[in-house]
Amino acid sequence: MKRSKSPNTLITAHVRRLKPYVPGEQPASKRVVKLNTNENPYPPSPMCEQVLKGFDLDRLRRYPDPVFAELRGALAALAGTTPDRVFVGNGSDEILSLLARAFVEDDESIGSLDPSYSLYKTLAAIRNVKWRGCPAAAAKSGAALAKKLHPSTSLFIWTNPNAPTGEFAEPAEIAAFAKAFRGVTVVDEAYADFARGNALALAASRGNRSLVVMRTFSKSYSLAGMRVGWCVGPKDLIEALYKVKDSYNVDAVAQAVALAAIRDQAWMRSNVRRIVATRNRFTAALKARGWDVIPSESNFVFARPPKTQRAAKLFADLKAKNIFVRYFKGSKTGDRLRITIGTDAQMKKLTKAIDELNLR
Amino acid sequence: MKRSKSPNTLITAHVRRLKPYVPGEQPASKRVVKLNTNENPYPPSPMCEQVLKGFDLDRLRRYPDPVFAELRGALAALAGTTPDRVFVGNGSDEILSLLARAFVEDDESIGSLDPSYSLYKTLAAIRNVKWRGCPAAAAKSGAALAKKLHPSTSLFIWTNPNAPTGEFAEPAEIAAFAKAFRGVTVVDEAYADFARGNALALAASRGNRSLVVMRTFSKSYSLAGMRVGWCVGPKDLIEALYKVKDSYNVDAVAQAVALAAIRDQAWMRSNVRRIVATRNRFTAALKARGWDVIPSESNFVFARPPKTQRAAKLFADLKAKNIFVRYFKGSKTGDRLRITIGTDAQMKKLTKAIDELNLR
Repeated sequence: MKRSKSPNTLITAHVRRLKPYVPGEQPASKRVVKLNTNENPYPPSPMCEQVLKGFDLDRLRRYPDPVFAELRGALAALAGTTPDRVFVGNGSDEILSLLARAFVEDDESIGSLDPSYSLYKTLAAIRNVKWRGCPAAAAKSGAALAKKLHPSTSLFIWTNPNAPTGEFAEPAEIAAFAKAFRGVTVVDEAYADFARGNALALAASRGNRSLVVMRTFSKSYSLAGMRVGWCVGPKDLIEALYKVKDSYNVDAVAQAVALAAIRDQAWMRSNVRRIVATRNRFTAALKARGWDVIPSESNFVFARPPKTQRAAKLFADLKAKNIFVRYFKGSKTGDRLRITIGTDAQMKKLTKAIDELNLR
Repeated sequence: MKRSKSPNTLITAHVRRLKPYVPGEQPASKRVVKLNTNENPYPPSPMCEQVLKGFDLDRLRRYPDPVFAELRGALAALAGTTPDRVFVGNGSDEILSLLARAFVEDDESIGSLDPSYSLYKTLAAIRNVKWRGCPAAAAKSGAALAKKLHPSTSLFIWTNPNAPTGEFAEPAEIAAFAKAFRGVTVVDEAYADFARGNALALAASRGNRSLVVMRTFSKSYSLAGMRVGWCVGPKDLIEALYKVKDSYNVDAVAQAVALAAIRDQAWMRSNVRRIVATRNRFTAALKARGWDVIPSESNFVFARPPKTQRAAKLFADLKAKNIFVRYFKGSKTGDRLRITIGTDAQMKKLTKAIDELNLR
């Protein structure tokens, strides 16, 4: 309890130790071919622009709807469930942080696949609990994965399709996992619109007691700049999230823009189809160059260059050419690059650069 | 550590116990005279509208600047300090939540004046630490107030002007308090633009080691719907907030709109002057009707009706007439109404309604 005015003791011990999550670079220059943060290369629905252009300033003057009733209703309809089973956050990031507050006691821990989205580890550190990874390969059997968990795990975040690998797990395996696991199962489906299936129906089903499916507007809806994430789960778990959220966590503009975006499903679906087609072409192009590409059901690929090109060096060389991809050092990820699928033109620039670098 | 799939044990014990903060009602009807959540009756700067109308959709597609460099630079200039001493949050609400994570250990507690903004109590409950109130009257002497604190207090939130009272404490007293207090002092200056002074210079001063001043765009800048709060403090404390925040906590539109708002200081100042003039006229009108009105330096008054009109009943009667004010039950607040200062026309409707109800 003793505290002095030294800077070291004003800050809590676990925050002093904390290494912050480092998001992918956001270069200001528009000349950069930006394939490093899994953004959508196509703009959001023109309906979003209409919302901004016609926004009633009186709605800025007033506080936003604290429970985003209109947006929530539309999301519930989309997910085939009722509004009391839907929550909306200031990006999925906020939902993750609230999950850690609502479902993890101080002596419990957070689990996820490994490798997976590295933010989860930081999330546990901020919440001051342990993070425990399970080999991503174990995700092939949900029931087996549940047996591998440390007994202190009370929240498991299953990214599907997984990042940075892009691999898709069958919803049936997730269902088997959730049934066997005694804690809360969260399926982070940031990339689900690019995949052949998802667990939304499981989350919305009446029998579901412990499964929460998380979605975002950042990827398929091209709204990363707007910060809107949402989730579906059992009513009592969703209620707990409302209890721990900030009073007005989603601003009025974000609520309106997100609503416009989901009302234009055709726009999103069309962009997703284009990205998937580009992904398949780009995957073939890499394979033709001797790369190993993990079959991806997302808007990125996780690919290992042939022996002539080392991933870490290639990452730096591409950056020098104003092409940004993502590199994660470490034994499980350090031999590959995670490459966001952009436009066909962007991917051609990238393959051309890869070829040039290989000839040097 | 034992958990079963029963709903009761999936949720952490302190969240199960939690009574959520109840914000003032946000009625959808525009016919309501809405004087219950201290919103500004005048619209934000026309420059904000221009930002929305001309917003580059490419900025929605991409993630926002995670460290809001441009906005932060402008805020630093406004506060007479450097950007590394400025933090921006998704409303002051988010900043409060981060303060509780960064500066309060599990066995420490959060203090504030009592009565004050009732969210602080909920904030402590969400953080699972004790909240301890100090009689607001003690705020007359900062040094004396510091002596009254429970030794476990590591974060003290001093609302100035205070809510719901509207009372202003001299910055010199806050300085004396911060000097005597061994924890982090946070001055919540949501209403400071309506007051005769503030502690921003103290927070920006080189010698400051433990004082953080918090501001919001919700009140004087008429941007409650946009969710932007900011704070100034010692570099190491500000750095700790960056470590515990979500990666992209302030969306691209909010960053741009807030920037436009602070660049139009004249607009904000002019609205503040109008509100202060209305406040003074309205205060006189209430006093002429036998009300006790605490001298306010904010955009609301905390006023006790004469014996002929009980506060709780008056609150309900006004609501029935579509005039929303705020009522806080309890021994310290239950004999008064907190009334937001709206336009002159709105305040006239209110005084007329008060007169009518008194005659019944």
